[in-house]
Amino acid sequence: MALDGVQALVFDVFGTVVDWRSGIARDATPFLAKHAPAASATDFADGWRRRYSPAMEEVRSGRRPFTRLDVLHRENLEALLPDFGIDPGKVTPDELEALNLAWHRLDPWPDSVAGLTRLKAGYIIAPLSNGNIRLMLDMAKRAGLPWDAILGAEVSQAYKPTPQAYLRTAEVLGVRPEQICLVAAHNGDLAAARRCGLRTAFVARPVEHGPGQKIDLVAEQDWDVVAADFVDLASRLGL
Amino acid sequence: MALDGVQALVFDVFGTVVDWRSGIARDATPFLAKHAPAASATDFADGWRRRYSPAMEEVRSGRRPFTRLDVLHRENLEALLPDFGIDPGKVTPDELEALNLAWHRLDPWPDSVAGLTRLKAGYIIAPLSNGNIRLMLDMAKRAGLPWDAILGAEVSQAYKPTPQAYLRTAEVLGVRPEQICLVAAHNGDLAAARRCGLRTAFVARPVEHGPGQKIDLVAEQDWDVVAADFVDLASRLGL
Repeated sequence: MALDGVQALVFDVFGTVVDWRSGIARDATPFLAKHAPAASATDFADGWRRRYSPAMEEVRSGRRPFTRLDVLHRENLEALLPDFGIDPGKVTPDELEALNLAWHRLDPWPDSVAGLTRLKAGYIIAPLSNGNIRLMLDMAKRAGLPWDAILGAEVSQAYKPTPQAYLRTAEVLGVRPEQICLVAAHNGDLAAARRCGLRTAFVARPVEHGPGQKIDLVAEQDWDVVAADFVDLASRLGL
Repeated sequence: MALDGVQALVFDVFGTVVDWRSGIARDATPFLAKHAPAASATDFADGWRRRYSPAMEEVRSGRRPFTRLDVLHRENLEALLPDFGIDPGKVTPDELEALNLAWHRLDPWPDSVAGLTRLKAGYIIAPLSNGNIRLMLDMAKRAGLPWDAILGAEVSQAYKPTPQAYLRTAEVLGVRPEQICLVAAHNGDLAAARRCGLRTAFVARPVEHGPGQKIDLVAEQDWDVVAADFVDLASRLGL
């Protein structure tokens, strides 16, 4: 079997388990109808997401102490408003907070819950996401994601692709890096995990970025497993 | 309702959710049959548990950096052997490691899973135990404890009853202390939680320490809720 000796499957979440773009666009729609009627909700989702990695880079570089993603998302939202012609002074803190929680309400891809449920019978399953614990917890409770534990950046106090994000996750699980496998739709995340010694499984999510997606359509390295979706991954692992 | 405004129930685990004494005695029985046939397995369990708080006190006092409970349990086990006339040199590391994992295999009290399942419909439920993440995770997976997340000492990097163990748990959940409620069978744990501003629920576990138990038989303060077991707690909370 491809993953002999592996005890835990840890998952990238935004894009791999859940469809962030559609979910953010859906929750932004009533907000934009009020504040920027001409704006595209998917453009708004893309713009918000584009500020994600630069915000974490402040933490990864050491310029800023570890700050949970809910806080970065909120700051990014406020910074995004002028790009859509919205005067931040005309939006109430309650409106911003409600919209910020859209990240807690993302829907899973159609195969995610069924696949995770099968995978859970053979492995420890947990998110290894940059999302904070409460965000992952609310998402799981709403969507029925059957995690065994919530791991990831807030537990590791490090944002992917910093090595500590992967290595401290193995440490918390009491195993060597090669005894855990990262499941992700992003070749870059898998490459960083492999450099730390983790096993790797790629699942393409070809419309994560919408119909014109150009990146991460195929496996770019010989990952340990390549599967069509989570249900196919379970079958390939004999579950 | 007694817990108006509470979003999460966090649980003491050893003694409150699971029966550590019977479980440790059960798993120690074959070990003792080999190494100390005259020894009482419940005495062995009690002796092992007696070393629990002093070991954590090294961390709580700051004399030792945070060290996960699996490591403390293992050290305590090795220290315990001579008390039962066992020569540590005659026990293999594999035997010790297997016995140390008995803490991962404790059985829940008869009402725990049914009660937690009902409570989960109305609240976030998570352990706030001194047990480490992997220990809590293995226990939950084996026993079917339906936690929404694994919180506690390893996430907080502090052992109860240090205030940080309670306060950082609230922080991770993104709520004020009074928005979480500790459920515990131990008056001392509840008292420490109340001093931090948490709400409190007492559930007596009158045979945690065996048939002659003298402590924690009744609520010693006016805790926010006092329930007979977890199923009764769910009913009292309208679930």
